[in-house]
Amino acid sequence: MPDKGGKFERIALIGLGLIGSSIGWAAKRASLAKHITGYAKSQATRQTAKRLGFVDSVAATARDAAANADLVILCTPVGAYGALAQEIQPALKQGAIVSDVGSVKTAVLRDVGPFIPEGVHFIPAHPVAGTEYSGPESGFAALFDNRWCILTPPPGTDAKAVEKLTRFWQACGSNVDYMTPEHHDLVLAVTSHLPHLIAYNIVGTAADLEDVTQKEVIKYSASGFRDFTRIAASDPTMWRDIFLNNREAVLEMLGRFTEDLSALQRAIRWGDGEALFETFSRTRIIRKQIIDAGQDTAAPDFGRVNKP
Amino acid sequence: MPDKGGKFERIALIGLGLIGSSIGWAAKRASLAKHITGYAKSQATRQTAKRLGFVDSVAATARDAAANADLVILCTPVGAYGALAQEIQPALKQGAIVSDVGSVKTAVLRDVGPFIPEGVHFIPAHPVAGTEYSGPESGFAALFDNRWCILTPPPGTDAKAVEKLTRFWQACGSNVDYMTPEHHDLVLAVTSHLPHLIAYNIVGTAADLEDVTQKEVIKYSASGFRDFTRIAASDPTMWRDIFLNNREAVLEMLGRFTEDLSALQRAIRWGDGEALFETFSRTRIIRKQIIDAGQDTAAPDFGRVNKP
Repeated sequence: MPDKGGKFERIALIGLGLIGSSIGWAAKRASLAKHITGYAKSQATRQTAKRLGFVDSVAATARDAAANADLVILCTPVGAYGALAQEIQPALKQGAIVSDVGSVKTAVLRDVGPFIPEGVHFIPAHPVAGTEYSGPESGFAALFDNRWCILTPPPGTDAKAVEKLTRFWQACGSNVDYMTPEHHDLVLAVTSHLPHLIAYNIVGTAADLEDVTQKEVIKYSASGFRDFTRIAASDPTMWRDIFLNNREAVLEMLGRFTEDLSALQRAIRWGDGEALFETFSRTRIIRKQIIDAGQDTAAPDFGRVNKP
Repeated sequence: MPDKGGKFERIALIGLGLIGSSIGWAAKRASLAKHITGYAKSQATRQTAKRLGFVDSVAATARDAAANADLVILCTPVGAYGALAQEIQPALKQGAIVSDVGSVKTAVLRDVGPFIPEGVHFIPAHPVAGTEYSGPESGFAALFDNRWCILTPPPGTDAKAVEKLTRFWQACGSNVDYMTPEHHDLVLAVTSHLPHLIAYNIVGTAADLEDVTQKEVIKYSASGFRDFTRIAASDPTMWRDIFLNNREAVLEMLGRFTEDLSALQRAIRWGDGEALFETFSRTRIIRKQIIDAGQDTAAPDFGRVNKP
């Protein structure tokens, strides 16, 4: 296979959950590093990572992991980035690339940027991929295949470093896109953060009912509710940090959502069938576009097998 | 195979979309009828049904289809039930069972009940199953396997008729449950109607943005949004009729949902990480219960294959 670039001598993964472990597997699949080292706060996680083999070694501190690495990727919840950046700062090698996988990007620039030494390339990134599972055992090499990875390099970032990180993500299976952090945060507020908030919320609403038992909610969930529970099963710490760090964009999208919902509520109250039909007719085309873009399956029910 | 009952001489399916065609296939799979006849408003649909073979014959009117049938099942959007019931009334055979598949049940009692002659058994039913596809080509025999079918027989309904319809649905693969129409409408308002409304709404909100292009919404939909687009691709006429016919219960659930959402909005605005974490932590257990109850798959991403 021809070398398409994106290879590093030594990669450090700071955080070994779903994304960290998937990067490890994807990098191994494409032989993108001579050595991958990993750090996680919990010793149990480090041991699991070592045992599973998506890292070659583990380090007891983030600073030890970052030392001598050519590519350091922060893969923890974004709320931990500031302290980690401060800790690894003295160990960062000249010419190294520091990146991350966080779902918000302006806050990452704010929290990590100040700790990046002269001569180290800081290129925030967001692989737009995931599942509802978390932890080091949930990762797999194909997670990034045919998904997008968004890079938000600050103005003036070394073009060769951006090129190298681009090739790395491409070799992990991703398509790569570039945005300003502000635009990224707006796009993700509507495609990801708002949907998660709504999903978490409706699951909470259903759990609180008096007249309908929780058992009934479970039994009849195939009628729509179960689709929401998948993303509402995502990691709570990660999502707390996202909402704390993308407040303005999320509140803006939430405001639009509730305005639109009030209009639908009014249509239901006044029996305005035409308004309902019009809203319900606009949406099929969007799903078709998502399927055509290879971002979802066309199989009915997501291809879930309807068997006991 | 021993005869477990639930067999009929002649079944009439009024409406040949996703549910009508799936009943046809399921009934054929278990040999539940000597003859299945079907009616659909559109001639093209009738021809397709005949060609595919999930009915043995088609009729040009609902009345012709219902004549001599031992089991008549209304499978159109619920808004059409009243006129259809009036039309088939004179043709209904003594001792026949009239049922339906509608997602609301109080309105069905109101609209169909008055047209049921003495000596005909009226047992509204709701098979809680479906996909985002519609039309006669979307049905399949396994649609009802391991799903629930809720019967809402009016007080005083002949117990033998209820037993016979129960066995029919069991032979179609379903588990059968019984409820009052009022309780049914409340349970489904939260497990089905509210989720669909929310899904339709968020897809509309995303389609209306100025600062984020629709192309970006499509590209990055794997980050959460795409999960909502599946149920928002459901049949618009069917869903218009559901909301027009379950107004009170839907407005009640929507009120609770928006109250809860306001609380989350406030937590985001004021940076209350603890409140967010608490809400986000309650939801995993509900998903686990749904999976344990056989109502969803445990495979990550609904088992969607992550390949180009």
